Amino acid sequence: MNDTTPRELDQIADAAAAASALLDRTDEAVRAGWLRAIAVALDAQSSMLVGIADDETALGTPRLAGELARTTAQLRLFADVIEEGSYLEATIDHPNAAATPPIPDLRRMLRPIGPIAVFAASNFPFAFSIAGGDTASALAVGCAVIVKAHPGHPQTSASTARIVIDSLREAGAPEGAFAMVSGFDAGLSLVDHPAIRAVAFTGSVRGGRALLDRISTRPDPIPFYGELGSLNPVVVTASADSEQGAKLAAGLAASFQLGVGQFCTKPGVVLVPHGSVLERELPQHLATQPRMLTPGIAGGFAGGGERVREVSGVRVVSAAGDPGDGTSPMVAITDVATLQANADALLEEVFGPFTLLVRYQGDAELDAVLDLLPGSLTATVHSADGEDVAALVRRLEPLAGRLLFGGWPTGVAVSWAQQHGGPWPSTNTQFTSVGATAVRRFQRPVAYQDAPDAVLPSALREENPLRTPRRVDGVLVTP
Amino acid sequence: MNDTTPRELDQIADAAAAASALLDRTDEAVRAGWLRAIAVALDAQSSMLVGIADDETALGTPRLAGELARTTAQLRLFADVIEEGSYLEATIDHPNAAATPPIPDLRRMLRPIGPIAVFAASNFPFAFSIAGGDTASALAVGCAVIVKAHPGHPQTSASTARIVIDSLREAGAPEGAFAMVSGFDAGLSLVDHPAIRAVAFTGSVRGGRALLDRISTRPDPIPFYGELGSLNPVVVTASADSEQGAKLAAGLAASFQLGVGQFCTKPGVVLVPHGSVLERELPQHLATQPRMLTPGIAGGFAGGGERVREVSGVRVVSAAGDPGDGTSPMVAITDVATLQANADALLEEVFGPFTLLVRYQGDAELDAVLDLLPGSLTATVHSADGEDVAALVRRLEPLAGRLLFGGWPTGVAVSWAQQHGGPWPSTNTQFTSVGATAVRRFQRPVAYQDAPDAVLPSALREENPLRTPRRVDGVLVTP
Repeated sequence: MNDTTPRELDQIADAAAAASALLDRTDEAVRAGWLRAIAVALDAQSSMLVGIADDETALGTPRLAGELARTTAQLRLFADVIEEGSYLEATIDHPNAAATPPIPDLRRMLRPIGPIAVFAASNFPFAFSIAGGDTASALAVGCAVIVKAHPGHPQTSASTARIVIDSLREAGAPEGAFAMVSGFDAGLSLVDHPAIRAVAFTGSVRGGRALLDRISTRPDPIPFYGELGSLNPVVVTASADSEQGAKLAAGLAASFQLGVGQFCTKPGVVLVPHGSVLERELPQHLATQPRMLTPGIAGGFAGGGERVREVSGVRVVSAAGDPGDGTSPMVAITDVATLQANADALLEEVFGPFTLLVRYQGDAELDAVLDLLPGSLTATVHSADGEDVAALVRRLEPLAGRLLFGGWPTGVAVSWAQQHGGPWPSTNTQFTSVGATAVRRFQRPVAYQDAPDAVLPSALREENPLRTPRRVDGVLVTP
Repeated sequence: MNDTTPRELDQIADAAAAASALLDRTDEAVRAGWLRAIAVALDAQSSMLVGIADDETALGTPRLAGELARTTAQLRLFADVIEEGSYLEATIDHPNAAATPPIPDLRRMLRPIGPIAVFAASNFPFAFSIAGGDTASALAVGCAVIVKAHPGHPQTSASTARIVIDSLREAGAPEGAFAMVSGFDAGLSLVDHPAIRAVAFTGSVRGGRALLDRISTRPDPIPFYGELGSLNPVVVTASADSEQGAKLAAGLAASFQLGVGQFCTKPGVVLVPHGSVLERELPQHLATQPRMLTPGIAGGFAGGGERVREVSGVRVVSAAGDPGDGTSPMVAITDVATLQANADALLEEVFGPFTLLVRYQGDAELDAVLDLLPGSLTATVHSADGEDVAALVRRLEPLAGRLLFGGWPTGVAVSWAQQHGGPWPSTNTQFTSVGATAVRRFQRPVAYQDAPDAVLPSALREENPLRTPRRVDGVLVTP
């Protein structure tokens, strides 16, 4: 896959801008049809795509087949979401001369923001890549999409892009509604390009911050939706450990080693009581994993491990044996005082099969650790049956976008209520990149004041031809 | 009013953080009561407040009394909005093992983001100041608020703050839920302070951009909601001009001189057909206005006028006579070629009673002007009765957040469907700072996975005790 040249990039961006003008008022049923056509085509090519992706990523056929199924389910969810219509937030105020100040005829809804640049992730070659959630949610609301392919899986990207482009063409979508670009420089040019109206990114804090800084130098800063680093803290209460410490050890081991630990929701720090069953049982579950996604990611994992090893007061347990080509998972164990003295070294995400156990004794030590934690995508509580965790939940709520009770954070359902995004550095916004409301990132509100019915989008016309759910004079009206 | 010292600022921010933890789960009815208590207290002190504000701003008693009434109506609207409950976006997915991937019990809602820094505006001493829309919407959703007072009306600010603080105390709100700070350095320290979770700002592009840049140097960049500069273009069609040019001239004159032109929605550029009645009739409506809000704003107006005057090909018409202490309004008139050659000089907002008429002939020239225009809060169309403006509307939609048909953009209703925010530089976000949805800026989504009912916020409990409108398994359920 050759890098996209500056000239090609300009053509692609201009085509996206032209397509956006056409996409802007397509009906929901039409765009839903496009998304479903892409899903059908990807499903039909599943074994081919999974084979290519396994060659490139070593993530394994079962995982990749599951990820592709998730990707097409996601396209279908967004089709359902736009057909349901609430995503438009259609709102009508009829005139009210008695209000302070008087209210004219005002009609507001969300409109597509324009061409979107999507930066594909390394770790989900399907679900957060070419036809992933960002692409699906942007196309769903009527935005053209340009995806910057991740260099970790170029053939998977090219094959997926071909299927998306062909499906859209056959389904009658405008040329330019979707394109893929490749290469580091093309990515930067995309972020700078005047046609681009927002950037969606899944990757590291460093990479995201660099793009955010770059956007701030644009004459017109545009929204940046970054999904960055996350520690995903887990708190195990003393009662939970004594009731089910062995089971928790097995569950944690499965979660932090899943996909070679290359998940943004990997549990990266686990607060366990002193002398826990979990700590005692965990090492037996460590097993050498396949190679990591890219040499760069493998290097980052090794470097992160070194950084942690060098902290005095940290004990490191690895899987036995020589990993050879594979990856040896790593558990670091420390106490609260060591963590407090070395927070920078120990609380930077180590991407890969690494987790840090922090032994605490009592609520004061638990609180001290929570005070140190940066924002995360998730936070998890393991407590005994019937144990009162209300106070703990209040402490965790400000730290994460999704709070789990009794499970593990890897595994992100794609549904109406999902939230995948939390305080900095896990994201830089109050949005989600997974689930129905992910579309909101790519919409902007427009209000029409005293507009003739004929110029209004369908959802705002008085007779409500598409039976869109609306708020009329303050009252929610479902069709 | 003394500048807030660094030590005072720290205490205020810490108190706001402590208050936020208490505000987080107060019931809607309780917070609505606080907002209404503030409104009652402000209304009771209306003549005192209006008198102080008129001394400081010269905006006149009728305008200021109207603005205060609007401010208290706004507090009451946000009370209604939170009591209605949809603002929580409560969403419940029951478990579905058959989904790809399987869906656990997931419950999502919006929660308060934490302490908010609000930068008060110069031009609305009540409605966009101490107890203005940003304060009301942040308090409504349960965020503590610290307002940086505008130096243009210090006594108005101090008096309003005293009433807000006393009302909240009497109504039982936690100490620290609201505070005011003063001084340039205090404003910067506020933006830097770790306790602050978002910044809302109404002011100039330059000021907003400086704060935005400052936020990007925080270890944790926080959301910045800026309402910055806006040209608010108006398009007058040839038919509209021949039908009602004289009336439009009077309407434009009233709108651009209103409040000495110190409105963010002032019509700053008006596209008129060559040889228009509007252009001929406009000068007779120019009248010397009161002094501007501050010497700095008056200097900016004079400087902007000079910048425009210096462009060859621009004719300037001012009100007759010596303005003395007052402000002489100014109309600049130019053609498309001059505008194209001098876009930077002519398309920078001149804050004050200034408007630029651009003569166009035919659709191609109209399009050429629209191509040059930056984003605005509003765009307005004046057309003849029954004239087809669909194509023109399609051109204007990407340029503004509110499209008006047959009116003038000054005058912003406070209602459910209002949108006050458009593309850069009018705002930097996809939110509004006026109307019901302004609350969304100060909320973050949190999802609870497999949570025991007892730890959930009321709106997410299975039995729905407060009868909150919710989406359950994809279906909107109104109580």
